[in-house]
Amino acid sequence: MPTTGHTIKAFDQDLDRLRASIAEMGGLAEAAIAGAMRALIDRDVNAANAVIENDARLDALEAEVERQAVQVIALRAPMANDLREVVAALKIAGVVERMGDYAKNIAKRVHAIEPGADLQPLSLLPEMARITGDMVRMVLEAFIRRDPEQATQVSERDRAVDDFYNSIFRTLLTFMMERPQSITAATHLLFVAKNLERIGDHATNVAEMVYFAATGTHLAEREKGGDPARG
Amino acid sequence: MPTTGHTIKAFDQDLDRLRASIAEMGGLAEAAIAGAMRALIDRDVNAANAVIENDARLDALEAEVERQAVQVIALRAPMANDLREVVAALKIAGVVERMGDYAKNIAKRVHAIEPGADLQPLSLLPEMARITGDMVRMVLEAFIRRDPEQATQVSERDRAVDDFYNSIFRTLLTFMMERPQSITAATHLLFVAKNLERIGDHATNVAEMVYFAATGTHLAEREKGGDPARG
Repeated sequence: MPTTGHTIKAFDQDLDRLRASIAEMGGLAEAAIAGAMRALIDRDVNAANAVIENDARLDALEAEVERQAVQVIALRAPMANDLREVVAALKIAGVVERMGDYAKNIAKRVHAIEPGADLQPLSLLPEMARITGDMVRMVLEAFIRRDPEQATQVSERDRAVDDFYNSIFRTLLTFMMERPQSITAATHLLFVAKNLERIGDHATNVAEMVYFAATGTHLAEREKGGDPARG
Repeated sequence: MPTTGHTIKAFDQDLDRLRASIAEMGGLAEAAIAGAMRALIDRDVNAANAVIENDARLDALEAEVERQAVQVIALRAPMANDLREVVAALKIAGVVERMGDYAKNIAKRVHAIEPGADLQPLSLLPEMARITGDMVRMVLEAFIRRDPEQATQVSERDRAVDDFYNSIFRTLLTFMMERPQSITAATHLLFVAKNLERIGDHATNVAEMVYFAATGTHLAEREKGGDPARG
């Protein structure tokens, strides 16, 4: 059991290394969201391809975090709280990798939208993307600093993302009804909005893990997902 | 280190318990997919509510698997392969919980579709749901039995799910263009198809984990997701 000063220090260093890898993942995910959104607005297929290719780095980092975490557990045999931190790191890496997948999905839609498509409802999406990107950055800062206050703020911002999603959903449906020729393009934008909404949900899930790890109590239960189809 | 017969046996029992919990989760996820689909076809709000309420059981089981896994690691200090198995169980429980979320999302759309809505493209969805439900069952059997052959079969079935998704996507778009009054309902069905496609993807991810755990090599890389918007 790691009770000597030397071993505890080694464990802390291992944990710092894990945290650094996760922070790097967060930076990549944030950049992927912003990059995918820019590519979508500019209809820039090359920029979209760059986002798609960069996702491999996120996948590799997640595998690296898993490898590191398993090694830390095997080598340091951490107990109770320390073990929970390593497991939390493992889970958070998985969530951030999925955020990257959603950003990649957004980038993949750039190919599918014809250059001439009339996409007026696009105007709300960039702001929604900005807020979800902020949530990703904030929640990983909260994780690194073990800051339950900031985790709470992330959870609160998710309401704004849900409101954006509801608004975009309604706007796009009306748009489709008025211009049947835009249905294909509008459908892709609907999935883009849904992907952003899921990123916001995942950031909130991480916020809940960070809050619980820091305080031992759960953030108040909220209904997830801002889909007007729900409830 | 667990080198005595007694400790090894205790570890195996712990692992069996973990596996049993995950098998139970798989059964619940499979039932949720079938239940949500039946509720959608029958426009049965009560049946949909039952699916939504039952999801709490899956969430609780995932938390239970995590608690068990952390306890096994702390108590038995498993090394190398054994540790990897516990980590795999932890990850698979997370994936199955997410499958349940997708089924819950399908159930939540039952409320949103007006009883009178004309939903002719609904005819392909039940078969797609049946295949994804089968994949969930098969991949968890493969996990419990450590059967790489069956894991490969699950991965192959995902192509059928992707084909269904592509077909439904195109059918619904055409349907929306022809009947603008059905756009809202058709959009919800599009999300249902997308949820099923994601369940299939997740089952394939689990299949890859099972295959790797059993053989030490990776299943051939495939492009995930059958969205015609992609590539």
